[in-house]
Amino acid sequence: MPRYKAPVRDMQFVLHELLSIENYSNLPGFSDASPDLVDQILEGGAKFAEDVLFPLNKVGDREGCTRNADGTVTTPTGFKDAYKQLVEAEWLSLSADPEYGGQGLPAVVNVALNEMQSASNMAFSMYPGLTHGAYQALLAGGSEEQKQTYVTRMINGGWSGTMNLTEPQCGTDLGLIKTKAIPQEDGSYKITGQKIWISGGEQDLSENIIHLVLARIEGAPEGIKGISLFVVPKYLVNEDGSLGERNTMQCGGLEEKMGIHGNATCVMNYDDAKGWLVGEEHKGMRTMFVMMNEARLGVGLQGLAQADIAYQNAADFARDRLQSRSLTGPAAPEKPADPIIVHPDVRRMLMDSRAFIEGARAFILWTALYGDLEHKSPDEKVREKASDYMALMTPVLKGFLTDHGFKTTSECLQLHGGIGYTEEMGVEQYMRDARIALIYEGTNGIQALDLVGRKLAANGGRAIFTFFGEIDDFIGENSDNDDLKFALEPLKDIREKLQEGTMWLMQNGMANFNNAGAASTDYMHLFGYTALAYMWAMMSKTALEKKDGSDPFYENKLITARYYMERILPRGGAHLSSLKTGADNMMALEAEAF
Amino acid sequence: MPRYKAPVRDMQFVLHELLSIENYSNLPGFSDASPDLVDQILEGGAKFAEDVLFPLNKVGDREGCTRNADGTVTTPTGFKDAYKQLVEAEWLSLSADPEYGGQGLPAVVNVALNEMQSASNMAFSMYPGLTHGAYQALLAGGSEEQKQTYVTRMINGGWSGTMNLTEPQCGTDLGLIKTKAIPQEDGSYKITGQKIWISGGEQDLSENIIHLVLARIEGAPEGIKGISLFVVPKYLVNEDGSLGERNTMQCGGLEEKMGIHGNATCVMNYDDAKGWLVGEEHKGMRTMFVMMNEARLGVGLQGLAQADIAYQNAADFARDRLQSRSLTGPAAPEKPADPIIVHPDVRRMLMDSRAFIEGARAFILWTALYGDLEHKSPDEKVREKASDYMALMTPVLKGFLTDHGFKTTSECLQLHGGIGYTEEMGVEQYMRDARIALIYEGTNGIQALDLVGRKLAANGGRAIFTFFGEIDDFIGENSDNDDLKFALEPLKDIREKLQEGTMWLMQNGMANFNNAGAASTDYMHLFGYTALAYMWAMMSKTALEKKDGSDPFYENKLITARYYMERILPRGGAHLSSLKTGADNMMALEAEAF
Repeated sequence: MPRYKAPVRDMQFVLHELLSIENYSNLPGFSDASPDLVDQILEGGAKFAEDVLFPLNKVGDREGCTRNADGTVTTPTGFKDAYKQLVEAEWLSLSADPEYGGQGLPAVVNVALNEMQSASNMAFSMYPGLTHGAYQALLAGGSEEQKQTYVTRMINGGWSGTMNLTEPQCGTDLGLIKTKAIPQEDGSYKITGQKIWISGGEQDLSENIIHLVLARIEGAPEGIKGISLFVVPKYLVNEDGSLGERNTMQCGGLEEKMGIHGNATCVMNYDDAKGWLVGEEHKGMRTMFVMMNEARLGVGLQGLAQADIAYQNAADFARDRLQSRSLTGPAAPEKPADPIIVHPDVRRMLMDSRAFIEGARAFILWTALYGDLEHKSPDEKVREKASDYMALMTPVLKGFLTDHGFKTTSECLQLHGGIGYTEEMGVEQYMRDARIALIYEGTNGIQALDLVGRKLAANGGRAIFTFFGEIDDFIGENSDNDDLKFALEPLKDIREKLQEGTMWLMQNGMANFNNAGAASTDYMHLFGYTALAYMWAMMSKTALEKKDGSDPFYENKLITARYYMERILPRGGAHLSSLKTGADNMMALEAEAF
Repeated sequence: MPRYKAPVRDMQFVLHELLSIENYSNLPGFSDASPDLVDQILEGGAKFAEDVLFPLNKVGDREGCTRNADGTVTTPTGFKDAYKQLVEAEWLSLSADPEYGGQGLPAVVNVALNEMQSASNMAFSMYPGLTHGAYQALLAGGSEEQKQTYVTRMINGGWSGTMNLTEPQCGTDLGLIKTKAIPQEDGSYKITGQKIWISGGEQDLSENIIHLVLARIEGAPEGIKGISLFVVPKYLVNEDGSLGERNTMQCGGLEEKMGIHGNATCVMNYDDAKGWLVGEEHKGMRTMFVMMNEARLGVGLQGLAQADIAYQNAADFARDRLQSRSLTGPAAPEKPADPIIVHPDVRRMLMDSRAFIEGARAFILWTALYGDLEHKSPDEKVREKASDYMALMTPVLKGFLTDHGFKTTSECLQLHGGIGYTEEMGVEQYMRDARIALIYEGTNGIQALDLVGRKLAANGGRAIFTFFGEIDDFIGENSDNDDLKFALEPLKDIREKLQEGTMWLMQNGMANFNNAGAASTDYMHLFGYTALAYMWAMMSKTALEKKDGSDPFYENKLITARYYMERILPRGGAHLSSLKTGADNMMALEAEAF
């Protein structure tokens, strides 16, 4: 039987021992987050994910969502009740802004909870996940009235939110948006058009759904510079905050998808729906990017989360399944065969998964802490570095972690053999669910282009050079730590390769933009391998300091670190060789020749 | 709309220009296979795959198979009629043994047809695919009477065949089989037990189903040395060849799988079913391996085939979909945006796919030709080399091509963006279908172990040293061909890496078998990259000889070859670094720590 156990111990290691979040008690919210409270939250969140969300995961996949004849959507059995519990227990407002009803705790703690929710039930967790992004956009770009009207009711999930960007003719290229907005005398707009791939566009979980919609005001400039952002509630809101009349948008259909069946992916038809401008006219993209960057971290997290639940079940299977004898002689001679975990190639799949998962978890939480620092640090220099890092790391997190997260689910399916290909073990669902994360919130190719085209060059490359400097400092400070040498040398090597790739891009990407495009995905992967190498080196240092022979956790961390350095990191170097070959080999064929 | 176009031109290139099969007219069957006839066969087969099988591919996925209350199974709408056409047009007996009703043409030509059938409808093509394996086993191990009774009626698909190996407690480790066979006075056996994952175990396509079943004769030795093979027909066969009474086995259920929904994956319950021994008592594995090796080539082919149909549709999508402008300025200024094929990162996905597909096709057909030589060459030395190569290349073909075939389908899904994740474009089905190929007929991990544990060492490493020698000869013979240098140098480099990996294995794998196990998958991939590099080098030589400026086919072949050498081959080297780190890092964690 599939199971999920939230990785509380590993999260505690990263939060308390690696990142030492208690050292940031000078920041708002952090002073409230005592280690004890953080542990209580992690344990409570774990229980909720394990006992409430996980049992609904397969139900959601099998039943899917149903669009009824009247355009309403029914979510899978049990989702409504679980959502109610989630809202009532105030799990969703944990790190939200206290000014609008949130609890103001560190975002980094909330990210750990989000991993649990995503792992135990990805399709379900997307409903509150999108809401979070939507109110962040309203907080960033909306008027005070909009914040009071909507955000206060969205923060705990009572009302939900959606992002409406894509149309049939445009996904990546939002300059092609056709949905139009006609200004009305009362200051509102009438919104008309079709939006597709709207996650949670219609559902039966929340009282109201607050759609954030990109549209073009009549007469607006063409392209991306004529796009405005609107807030368009499913039910209009009366002055006293109660629900008023039903707005004129409808769910026109649900997509038949490979996975995340429990999440309603809607075609949304807006027909003179009443909406209000968020922020300035024609500047909708700016606010939408707040939402997208936020969402991209959440998607990277999904890659990690699906990898983790797949890994946990693969590990169980490897311990239970008896098949063949160890190559070095029977390990369990009293049984008809040995558990397959004795076989090196089975170990390989588990260790690959584990080394990715724990490295990815550290990377996400390390980045999320910069998210807190960006918004809360009193020190301008710290805020600047944090902002640089958030910008630089977001596409890497999204692209690298979803790609390798998906591969990890596939590897864990493989470990199961034939039964992994059936619904029985759950893992085939985790793989199908994980697959979307490489696509939405900007395909991984778009992340790679964002990285090489925008993020690297910003402020003269300040962010990446700060990152190189940080790695160099770490290596320098620990150069006399012989026990850490196994990690420092490979880290130094991959860091040099990343710098070589960066220099190649700077020299060749400007001369021919296609060189930058051609190198982008390889560069993103090289960056990801480097970032995880740095995480593993830092975790190794901490583990060496903490290990005292009583808790095998630290020794296991060091074993996994060594595996990452020896077995996985060489793959990073291959990306450098590939990217340096430039665009010519890629662009030579005529389009018709394919 | 999804489409499939059989790659006839590329197959002609490989068969006529690269392999020059017309030079083998001294072999039985080859003399009949004039270039014109081969082309006619390819074109006819293409038409059948495109017009008959492909339109049923999505139907099969959506409808799946149904088990009726009486244990019969209904295949998807249209399958029965398509199967009838396949049988009547004698497509299935093309390369079968003329002694039992086959047409005796070269197997290598048949493999090309199989690619088309698998690409256009993998679930459907598995029905005749398994039949082929089953009668090969009967030809290899059965009595003359069994051949006359069964094989003659299976060769064109009128009767079908299945392989019954797996039981709930054993897949890889067939020594654990419990199904029992009790000898009867009339020379038959009563077979009782449960078999699972039986592809086509029940269906409504063929008149009779001939099950080949592994079972243990009462009192047989334990383990793999007590397994015998039985032929157990669904309907007993009267003396005159007509169908007699229904045998006592039933389909007890169908698996709910991630893909290949159009193929019935059956639980088969044998309840004193009447069967006959094939070959000798307790020596069933030997004959079953004939069937499995055959089947493994077919599974490798599935990896290629699903990659190709995914690639074709991705290329169409890339030409059609308008999104964003080229990085180097508008390519189609008259349109609202450029077709995405102008973007380097989209090209990367297409070129990765193409370089894999064309390399894999050459590798499969090159190997299949050795299959013909193994059985048909009058020259003992040639037969020996062919037999060595078939043994050595089979696990590489199965493991490497299914792994990369699956990755290619995923990459082609990615190219589509969001719509790729829905059923609309077909590609998500190709990915789900392709996923099984990494598992069945021996998981890819088992292939890797077979390669390093059995195939490498056989006859003192004769096969691999012959292969190294052949590559060295090729490099030597072409060393003054400056136009080929771009391919020869990388080939030399990867061949040296493969040799280094081989030597490492010979030195370290014997001392500690876990080192061999730990290195096996990396070694298999290193081998695969090397084999495809050799194919690309040979194809480049041929293309250089043939190109005359009029047909862009050859120029395109050279462009793709260069891409393979520059962009893809570096990944092979990373596998060498990984494998040389040995088993220690892999085996260090306690089983409970995972």
